[in-house]
Amino acid sequence: MRFEEGRQRVIIERVEPEIDGGRYAIKRVVGERVVVEADVFTDGHDAISCALLYRKQGELEWHETPMEFLVNDRWRAELTVQEMGRYYYSIKAWVDRFKSWSRDLVKRVEAGQDVRVDRLIGADLIDEAREHASGDDAAALQGFAAALRRGGDDGAQQGLSSALAALMARYLDQRYAVMYDHELPVTVDRERARFSTWYELFPRSTSPVPNRHGTFKDVEARLPYIASMGFDVLYLPPIHPIGRELRKGRNNNPNGEPDAPGSPWAIGAAEGGHKAIHPELGTLDDFRHLVQKAREYGIDIAMDIAFQCAPDHPYVKEHPEWFRARPDGTIQYAENPPKKYQDIYPFDFETTKWRELWQELKSVICFWIEQGVTIFRVDNPHTKAFRFWEWAIDEIKRSHPETIFLSEAFTRPKVMYKLAKLGFTQSYTYFAWRNTKWELTQYLTELTQTHLHDICRPNFWPNTPDILTEQFQIDGRATFMTRLVLAATLAASYGIYGPVYELCINTPLIHGKEEYLDSEKYEIKHWDLDQPYSLKEFIARVNHIRRQSPALQSNQNLRFLDIQNDQIIAYIKYTPEHDNVILTIVNLDPHYTQSGWVGLPLDDLKIDPHQPFQVHDLLTDMRYIWNGPYNYVELNPNVMPAHIFTIRRRVRSEHDFEYFS
Amino acid sequence: MRFEEGRQRVIIERVEPEIDGGRYAIKRVVGERVVVEADVFTDGHDAISCALLYRKQGELEWHETPMEFLVNDRWRAELTVQEMGRYYYSIKAWVDRFKSWSRDLVKRVEAGQDVRVDRLIGADLIDEAREHASGDDAAALQGFAAALRRGGDDGAQQGLSSALAALMARYLDQRYAVMYDHELPVTVDRERARFSTWYELFPRSTSPVPNRHGTFKDVEARLPYIASMGFDVLYLPPIHPIGRELRKGRNNNPNGEPDAPGSPWAIGAAEGGHKAIHPELGTLDDFRHLVQKAREYGIDIAMDIAFQCAPDHPYVKEHPEWFRARPDGTIQYAENPPKKYQDIYPFDFETTKWRELWQELKSVICFWIEQGVTIFRVDNPHTKAFRFWEWAIDEIKRSHPETIFLSEAFTRPKVMYKLAKLGFTQSYTYFAWRNTKWELTQYLTELTQTHLHDICRPNFWPNTPDILTEQFQIDGRATFMTRLVLAATLAASYGIYGPVYELCINTPLIHGKEEYLDSEKYEIKHWDLDQPYSLKEFIARVNHIRRQSPALQSNQNLRFLDIQNDQIIAYIKYTPEHDNVILTIVNLDPHYTQSGWVGLPLDDLKIDPHQPFQVHDLLTDMRYIWNGPYNYVELNPNVMPAHIFTIRRRVRSEHDFEYFS
Repeated sequence: MRFEEGRQRVIIERVEPEIDGGRYAIKRVVGERVVVEADVFTDGHDAISCALLYRKQGELEWHETPMEFLVNDRWRAELTVQEMGRYYYSIKAWVDRFKSWSRDLVKRVEAGQDVRVDRLIGADLIDEAREHASGDDAAALQGFAAALRRGGDDGAQQGLSSALAALMARYLDQRYAVMYDHELPVTVDRERARFSTWYELFPRSTSPVPNRHGTFKDVEARLPYIASMGFDVLYLPPIHPIGRELRKGRNNNPNGEPDAPGSPWAIGAAEGGHKAIHPELGTLDDFRHLVQKAREYGIDIAMDIAFQCAPDHPYVKEHPEWFRARPDGTIQYAENPPKKYQDIYPFDFETTKWRELWQELKSVICFWIEQGVTIFRVDNPHTKAFRFWEWAIDEIKRSHPETIFLSEAFTRPKVMYKLAKLGFTQSYTYFAWRNTKWELTQYLTELTQTHLHDICRPNFWPNTPDILTEQFQIDGRATFMTRLVLAATLAASYGIYGPVYELCINTPLIHGKEEYLDSEKYEIKHWDLDQPYSLKEFIARVNHIRRQSPALQSNQNLRFLDIQNDQIIAYIKYTPEHDNVILTIVNLDPHYTQSGWVGLPLDDLKIDPHQPFQVHDLLTDMRYIWNGPYNYVELNPNVMPAHIFTIRRRVRSEHDFEYFS
Repeated sequence: MRFEEGRQRVIIERVEPEIDGGRYAIKRVVGERVVVEADVFTDGHDAISCALLYRKQGELEWHETPMEFLVNDRWRAELTVQEMGRYYYSIKAWVDRFKSWSRDLVKRVEAGQDVRVDRLIGADLIDEAREHASGDDAAALQGFAAALRRGGDDGAQQGLSSALAALMARYLDQRYAVMYDHELPVTVDRERARFSTWYELFPRSTSPVPNRHGTFKDVEARLPYIASMGFDVLYLPPIHPIGRELRKGRNNNPNGEPDAPGSPWAIGAAEGGHKAIHPELGTLDDFRHLVQKAREYGIDIAMDIAFQCAPDHPYVKEHPEWFRARPDGTIQYAENPPKKYQDIYPFDFETTKWRELWQELKSVICFWIEQGVTIFRVDNPHTKAFRFWEWAIDEIKRSHPETIFLSEAFTRPKVMYKLAKLGFTQSYTYFAWRNTKWELTQYLTELTQTHLHDICRPNFWPNTPDILTEQFQIDGRATFMTRLVLAATLAASYGIYGPVYELCINTPLIHGKEEYLDSEKYEIKHWDLDQPYSLKEFIARVNHIRRQSPALQSNQNLRFLDIQNDQIIAYIKYTPEHDNVILTIVNLDPHYTQSGWVGLPLDDLKIDPHQPFQVHDLLTDMRYIWNGPYNYVELNPNVMPAHIFTIRRRVRSEHDFEYFS
């Protein structure tokens, strides 16, 4: 063991946030804070000082902000990230000789000790600092040193002045300062990375004329409807040419009908592959026009990135080395034995040509960025090499930090969280399968109260084209309402697959399985959006509440509340400043009215327990006067299964009238 | 971001145990196991294999042991450390093509699928492995490949044989195997590092003649007494010449009497410094003789390492640059303003000559190792530079792995634990100030159930020459007994400062402070070891129980038990194999008899809840028949304030008699 400098005496440890020793970045959006804490201490009794260092990628110099001592050798400071891109932070600490000296001088003076020698020690320190100062500062330091040497009570007092402390902090050499071992990265995204409201639809099902293939123009006509419901991301399943070889028919029939439109995820045909447009949807120009038009409605178009090929994808002929060959000369299709998916060829990430494959796949994403797309929903990223994603996302975000990648990995938790660490901006979750109060509480606690909060931004989807959970199949409209409220208020980002969702479509192919009957994945649908039972206005209301409520736009500060009824879940979300507090209460029972007394943490909310306060239901516009920590709630699922309250701290009383006093 | 090899697809994360990314070593003793776990997974559906690698420092090749899959992508294996010194471990994992192939083949065969092509794929894999094999193995592989190519049911069956699997595990290239980023160190000590029983005495107080200065010969005469109480480490306060300048008198009187013997921690005088012996104790030869003699009694002599100097220490003249100069030309004495310790000069670890200082201090330890000492109790290590300790302990243990360092740092927790991480073998603790059931439970949980367990070996001292807690001052003999039982059964290492302890000396200098009246630190004492109230036989009994009970010789597997009386604490300790279970129950109330029903985890202890079992009190030799999880206990502090039970699982019944059946 060798030490270049044995006099570096300060220890910096247990820095938070820190992911795997700085190997992976934490995530923030523009304008958010990074609160950094660390254990910092030295041997003996000397005072130390400690600074948070940070810089944006490309900057040569650290910015520096002093850290504050908390308790138990813990120090804290914060920085605010102002721009998209990558930031780094670290910590510097040093034995602070002047701070030790002045701290001790106070004690000596208080004890009435002779401080002659101590004054001289202080004057020597000031002289040392003065060597690095000039002009007025040098003169001021000289004055302080002289006063200390001159002595008397005044000399000691001047030694303790805050003006001197400030000068010494600036000029006294931070002798043997220690830098923390790691520079810790932050990925800074735009706000939509944190707060987004997604709507998924199949473009081919948007034609106003039944049985006609929808087009990008039809999607444009649908934009006002989508915007009126309050969505800001419109996610389209793949829009590329669909393979003809072994094309699947309705309900995933392997012996497809000759006229079957096929699954959009069977990508690639004679017309082209991942950089081409399915001819029946329109042209590349039409697509660019849609992207622009959507932007006028405040909507981002999200592209599907599904890195797999139909057998007639041009890659298969042009780059057979990107696929795995079987001993019989055929190409290895996808399988999960004994299941076979012969219409899909996966890429072989162990190909000797992996560099070319990586570059080509990255170029697919870049191609669509050039067409104006900034959000990508990545299909099954966990079946492609982890290292590819780490490299590709990093490369792309260096030049396009506005890009957002949603990981569609429904797999084991370690794998899902790893993808988030590797760089995915948002992640699909297990929300669809978390239904009971206990399940929701456990899962949200894991997502929001652990280190996952810094790396994984959950995106909650109650349904997808692949997922119609039993909950929906068994229960009706009330479940569609409660699951929407839960997704929209528990997670800052959520999405639905429509119009199936607002129309409460819930017929499965087989009861107990999660596949829709006559799934839109394999056929063109025509939806009647004006059905009277449509939830479109309810959804619009919920999304409006989200836009008005900063508390619902982030995943920090979620707290579950006590209520002695396991069919009712209650929680608050609040901004760090407590200036927006949203209390959501949901009846999880789709059949019966449920009631209970919900417990509020009045202290934290700064509500006087002896004064009434008002809760205002933003869903129904009803207001209630409450008092004290426990208040009664009752929810009838056939009327309105949830409250989304904003808490107004004070109720007017006679004191508010001018003529009262 | 650059990747040399993009085809390495396996991820290895969250390895445990791991301290700060491998920056610091975990601790074990010879013969102990290191159980290693990690999250290991890959993309997609391929099977993986995973191996724990380990080697002793100096070995060029890793040993390799397969890891087993647990659940949730977690894998585990263990290694046993066989020799003192340093070991390293790491993890290797790879996509296992043969394992994937055979797992899938089973599913395909079960589903009745045509496996012709799959047999060929398997045969190709076998051919690939065969290239690395020779002799019988190569021939066997060739046979398996031929059988697979020949086909039929038999071919497929042979593909699944365990003989083939074993050959493939040996010879199939671990293509694109991933090594974990870190090599994680283990410091392996001798057993006494984990299990030790300490006795501290002042050699100068061992003379059989009152008022005569004790000698090493007198200490030798005391060895049978110490050994009879069951101690295996005898710790001596500093044995060096004591400074004469500003020597302290009785009760720390700064105006010492002319004949005062002084404090042994004021090290150094004309006769010499840290490598010299106080002349009145004897010669260096006498000391070496004592070390040898103690060894015959199974006792290690522990030296005090107090790196500080009296004003007349030879270092002060020879190396003034190792101390800090004050502007008035004097040397900076120790202080904690406004307190001044003018009889002590601390070393200045910011001296420009730090390299020389470090070397000299290290040479002090090496000097005493040459005299036969292997255990060092280091005085106030937290007032010396952390980096010095890290360097010195590492350097010394490379050539003397048997050395044990006990850190005497009574300071803030982060600092204490840091010293343990830096290399100290054992640590003093806050035990002296943990008296209530809640305090003891919290503290022991922190020490034994967190990562601290791997780095910090607590050594529990109820008293020291500096620490006579209020508990002892207020309460009498029962407290001396309970605190001893707690220390001896909660921690694998503990110690007492005697004969003060066994004689129940508890008069403070000032009530409420922790300093002894007429402290032995400043004067020579003469103790009457044969006082009838001496606890020596009780202590001997407790230490005998410790030696007979493997469960008490380590700090793993401590579990607190339910008992609805806050004055009674109950806990079990057990060996990993459950072949030794010790149940300790202590009445913390020194005044009154307390009782309660103690709850045992019968399931874990594999005790039949419907059958009686026996508990045998090793302190009193009393036996009790218990039944079911809750059993009554009652402890009178004036008789015996504790039980130390061994649990005997089964009670004899009529079935045990030969003539029963």
